[in-house]
Amino acid sequence: MAFACTGYAAQSATTPLAPLSFQRRETGPDDVRIEILFCGVCHSDIHTARNEWRSSVYPVIPGHEIVGRVTEVGQNVTNFKVGDIAGVGCMVNSCRKCPSCLAGEEQYCEVGMTGTYNDPDKDMPGQRTYGGYSKFIVVDKSFVLNIPKNLDLAATAPLLCAGITTYSPLRHWKVSKGQKVGIVGLGGLGHMAVKFAKALGADVTLFTTSPSKVEDGKRLGAHHVVISKDEQAMKALGRSFDFILDAVAAPHDINLYFNLLRRDGTLVQVGAPDEPLSVEVFSLIFPRRNFAGSLIGGIAETQEMLNFCGEHNITADIEMIRMDQINDAYEKILASKVKYRFVIDMSTLPENA
Amino acid sequence: MAFACTGYAAQSATTPLAPLSFQRRETGPDDVRIEILFCGVCHSDIHTARNEWRSSVYPVIPGHEIVGRVTEVGQNVTNFKVGDIAGVGCMVNSCRKCPSCLAGEEQYCEVGMTGTYNDPDKDMPGQRTYGGYSKFIVVDKSFVLNIPKNLDLAATAPLLCAGITTYSPLRHWKVSKGQKVGIVGLGGLGHMAVKFAKALGADVTLFTTSPSKVEDGKRLGAHHVVISKDEQAMKALGRSFDFILDAVAAPHDINLYFNLLRRDGTLVQVGAPDEPLSVEVFSLIFPRRNFAGSLIGGIAETQEMLNFCGEHNITADIEMIRMDQINDAYEKILASKVKYRFVIDMSTLPENA
Repeated sequence: MAFACTGYAAQSATTPLAPLSFQRRETGPDDVRIEILFCGVCHSDIHTARNEWRSSVYPVIPGHEIVGRVTEVGQNVTNFKVGDIAGVGCMVNSCRKCPSCLAGEEQYCEVGMTGTYNDPDKDMPGQRTYGGYSKFIVVDKSFVLNIPKNLDLAATAPLLCAGITTYSPLRHWKVSKGQKVGIVGLGGLGHMAVKFAKALGADVTLFTTSPSKVEDGKRLGAHHVVISKDEQAMKALGRSFDFILDAVAAPHDINLYFNLLRRDGTLVQVGAPDEPLSVEVFSLIFPRRNFAGSLIGGIAETQEMLNFCGEHNITADIEMIRMDQINDAYEKILASKVKYRFVIDMSTLPENA
Repeated sequence: MAFACTGYAAQSATTPLAPLSFQRRETGPDDVRIEILFCGVCHSDIHTARNEWRSSVYPVIPGHEIVGRVTEVGQNVTNFKVGDIAGVGCMVNSCRKCPSCLAGEEQYCEVGMTGTYNDPDKDMPGQRTYGGYSKFIVVDKSFVLNIPKNLDLAATAPLLCAGITTYSPLRHWKVSKGQKVGIVGLGGLGHMAVKFAKALGADVTLFTTSPSKVEDGKRLGAHHVVISKDEQAMKALGRSFDFILDAVAAPHDINLYFNLLRRDGTLVQVGAPDEPLSVEVFSLIFPRRNFAGSLIGGIAETQEMLNFCGEHNITADIEMIRMDQINDAYEKILASKVKYRFVIDMSTLPENA
């Protein structure tokens, strides 16, 4: 019922990731078995490997930006065949019955979606789910995505988390042609948000604390780049934005950005700071502004996003690493030294742990 | 061009309110002159009298919940005639040209609306606007409201601020029959919100810290009353509300209420705490909740609210006071010892200051 699979795991909050042999389930009737080709490295991987959200059960095998090749499908699987290129994102299951699941918003499953790693694995009782830093993954067909054929596979992997996390709020709040949209922070999430907002026809302003990112912001598609420490520039933009997507996970003064919103404008936070944000209520009351959060996106919407990327030829800007560079990559991410997503070439995973 | 009017004024942040004679403009061609019969007492009156918002220019004559009788109209005034009962709320003017004004949202005027008190008075250069703690007020016809004939006049006065402040967000966020709506805090704003939410057909839950308010909450129309300190009761309501209106101006843990919202639910803050609120971003991200603010309402919407009150026979629960009880009333408001709005009987204003 199970087979031995090789992966890269954290064995505790303080030990570096290292090779591990573990068990995956055999391909069930509804399952797709994927040989992983590329896996993006998300900040959540670090939080979980290091137990920073205090919910990790070891070993932790991170990775939820997965692109690979289908090597086996169960008898009920009609949407994938052996040899297809497939993707897996942050979820591998959900209850499929609650209002959120029925609305195609499995990420908000009222029972609780099953994360791709570090969640109880319904199919392997007593075991946690193990993510994409591994040779294979076996996933129910309803949580496997089709990858457009024209996209670079390695640069597509980060779409499965960084992509959908930014695409979903832009679509949910109906960002459209001619709107004035701000993106706060140019990292893994922010650089995708700039590309999407541009492709949706918005007038895009990137806010960054780093003068060194101005040129890159424009290359990625921002029409304007504003250094957020420039008080005069910020003041001049007061009450002018329809929508702002804030992708900064570090503590920062969010009220500065509320002040840039028009009446009925919305700021959506997708970065998740560890500490509470301090909100000046008057900035919301006047003139009736909205502050919201958003978590990844549903499976159907993730497929829509991938198709949109295929049409608009959008992928992430990545730096490829070998599997054994993962611990070093984590340090670089924490120091913001990545443009803009590390992707692991999974062919560099050792054959045996 | 001006006439002497009697009012009750604060001469500094620390002196009690006392009689004052001041100048009002004569009735211009677009003006309505109103003899004030009743004036509600709003917490903002105290903030301004005591310069707690650091913007007061003395003398301050507060009062923006005004009901009175029309005694004179200018030649261009067709919507009011002498003898009519009329109302004035928090605004007496705005630019009338900006997108917010053109959308009927004068309270968000991009140039800045003219508050009924303590704002520069365009018609009396060098002077501030003076509010409803006075014998007369002269207001442009576009900022004067019609009062339905069936309503008690004294109990109608608080509708002009407490009423519209709670009605507007309930309407803007489309609260409707069958929705599950929470109201936080049973004060001047909260008790109006309970009445409106009930009248709109919602299933209404009042949240209060005071067990002594349970009975009153139900009498006012709440279907359920929950003591917000009851952790178990709060936990049982997780993820069940469509909309929550928070009318608490004191510092409080707003994250408790975010956790009660369904996916895509909205919490609107209308009370304005002096200090920033601490927001747990995860409570907004999961499951995609909204936090918004709202300020009074536009003039057309205020008229709509008054008409709605006429149809549903809704007024405020009030305690009538004499003008010379105002300083004592402020202390009672600060001690939450009012059910639920003081209204000044303006016939008790001395004839001369």
